[in-house]
Amino acid sequence: MKFLTFQLKNESSKVGIFYQEKVLDLPKLTELFQQATNKDVPYITNLDSLVHLNEEVMPVIRDIYEWAKENEKEVAEATYSLDEITIQAPVSTPGKVVCVGNNYMDHCIEQNVEPPKKPMIFSKWASCIVGPGEAIELPQDSEQVDYEAELVVVIGKKGKNITEEDALDYVFGYTIMNDVSARDVQFEDVQWVRGKSYDTFSPLGPVIVTKDEIDDPHKLDIKLEVNGEALQDSNTKHLIFNIPHIISYLSKGFTFEPGDIIATGTPHGVGVFRDPQVFLKSGDTCKIEIEKIGVLENKVK
Amino acid sequence: MKFLTFQLKNESSKVGIFYQEKVLDLPKLTELFQQATNKDVPYITNLDSLVHLNEEVMPVIRDIYEWAKENEKEVAEATYSLDEITIQAPVSTPGKVVCVGNNYMDHCIEQNVEPPKKPMIFSKWASCIVGPGEAIELPQDSEQVDYEAELVVVIGKKGKNITEEDALDYVFGYTIMNDVSARDVQFEDVQWVRGKSYDTFSPLGPVIVTKDEIDDPHKLDIKLEVNGEALQDSNTKHLIFNIPHIISYLSKGFTFEPGDIIATGTPHGVGVFRDPQVFLKSGDTCKIEIEKIGVLENKVK
Repeated sequence: MKFLTFQLKNESSKVGIFYQEKVLDLPKLTELFQQATNKDVPYITNLDSLVHLNEEVMPVIRDIYEWAKENEKEVAEATYSLDEITIQAPVSTPGKVVCVGNNYMDHCIEQNVEPPKKPMIFSKWASCIVGPGEAIELPQDSEQVDYEAELVVVIGKKGKNITEEDALDYVFGYTIMNDVSARDVQFEDVQWVRGKSYDTFSPLGPVIVTKDEIDDPHKLDIKLEVNGEALQDSNTKHLIFNIPHIISYLSKGFTFEPGDIIATGTPHGVGVFRDPQVFLKSGDTCKIEIEKIGVLENKVK
Repeated sequence: MKFLTFQLKNESSKVGIFYQEKVLDLPKLTELFQQATNKDVPYITNLDSLVHLNEEVMPVIRDIYEWAKENEKEVAEATYSLDEITIQAPVSTPGKVVCVGNNYMDHCIEQNVEPPKKPMIFSKWASCIVGPGEAIELPQDSEQVDYEAELVVVIGKKGKNITEEDALDYVFGYTIMNDVSARDVQFEDVQWVRGKSYDTFSPLGPVIVTKDEIDDPHKLDIKLEVNGEALQDSNTKHLIFNIPHIISYLSKGFTFEPGDIIATGTPHGVGVFRDPQVFLKSGDTCKIEIEKIGVLENKVK
């Protein structure tokens, strides 16, 4: 399933399911399902809660989804076309935004650095998350704002000391992040968090694809274009540390909680290591596509 | 006022007010106040919500507090002695844990580093917050776990581009953090966040003192003892960047949100820069005292 957070005009945000180029309104579907079946089902309004409750509610949500697909007419009033809604960031309040640096072999080569011997970990503050279609705002104190296409893991279960074998049990699904980075600030600060956490610096979305829809997250094409020009073009098979390894490694130190997200690193082609360098400027459009997940597009202003 | 989060046996956590060595149960006080006065008042159960709602609810909470002080008998059932309760971390879900490094002149001298020209910013993940009395757990993969006494600012109002003049309007109050750090991991990783975010590495509390009770947060004695031996002993007057400057500086890049916390840095005397070095070992007790706030004590295990 593909979950998203959306807004109808003048209404508050809620969780939807992306199905055949349309969006099913989950809270409304739940009401219709309840009326039709007389079953008592949990009423989930937002995707943050859904990810937190995950195993507790997903079986019923799958039932509702299957029922909706078989009852197209009955659920017409809970079905919107994409032009009726605004898609927002799928989750907005992750407890942790964990990022892995230098995690593609091709990205290490372009920087002329040795591949790391263990995952290189940094963080972003969640207050910089924005949705698809929202603007990336250039800050006044940076001249070097760069893009980074990344596959993101969304954690769906609390855990510590997780083995690599069990790691995928803790995954809810996958989404896309543009790990926007003010390079001058990032490198001058040495600690990266400030230069990577300016407001709007984490476009996220458009959907979270549940893990059952992706056989192997380490076999996905990942591409980024700026104004239609392909600047990153790789595949997650080039990840140095794979997802089970990252989860297991980190969970030796801290507890993962549902809603935490892990940005797994960016492939080669980022602006700062190009010759000549490419930095984002007002009016640019960044478009990231990851196979089986979708397209995340944001204008720069 | 001094707010805290506490737990009575077998009950869920709630917010209290520390008054004359006792704890007033705010949700219960609210009920009693409502019965006695017939006023319709907001019912706040936890300190995270109180900090978020802040200006909206604080005038009424002050009324309730004043009423309680004048009606000791009526509120006896909502008053506990310290041995009846467990004090927990005052807040547990800050959106951002912002930390300022090398922010005491005496701490720069002991490391033999130049004082920074602008605030040196890093982060911790909130999942490592624990309360007073909870154990600091030594991780298996570090041999160099160190302590750091820090004054913490709790943000009470959303804001961006905040001027230094207005900065204290955005502060809810102050508390204490032990910024526990696995030095070997911190320095080997280069990015500090992992070595500083092991579970239990941010003891916080015991109370949040509202800003009106502290005339000048830059005039507070700050001390840390391990097993009764004074290892840090300084005053917040030695802060290189003061609190209004830190808030203003950071708010140029990101939006502060209620509940965010800022650990303002540690003075000289940390274990890694002592000769001989001192690292925490199982059975140790860390005790931090900051004037006008209180004492934060945690065992190491």
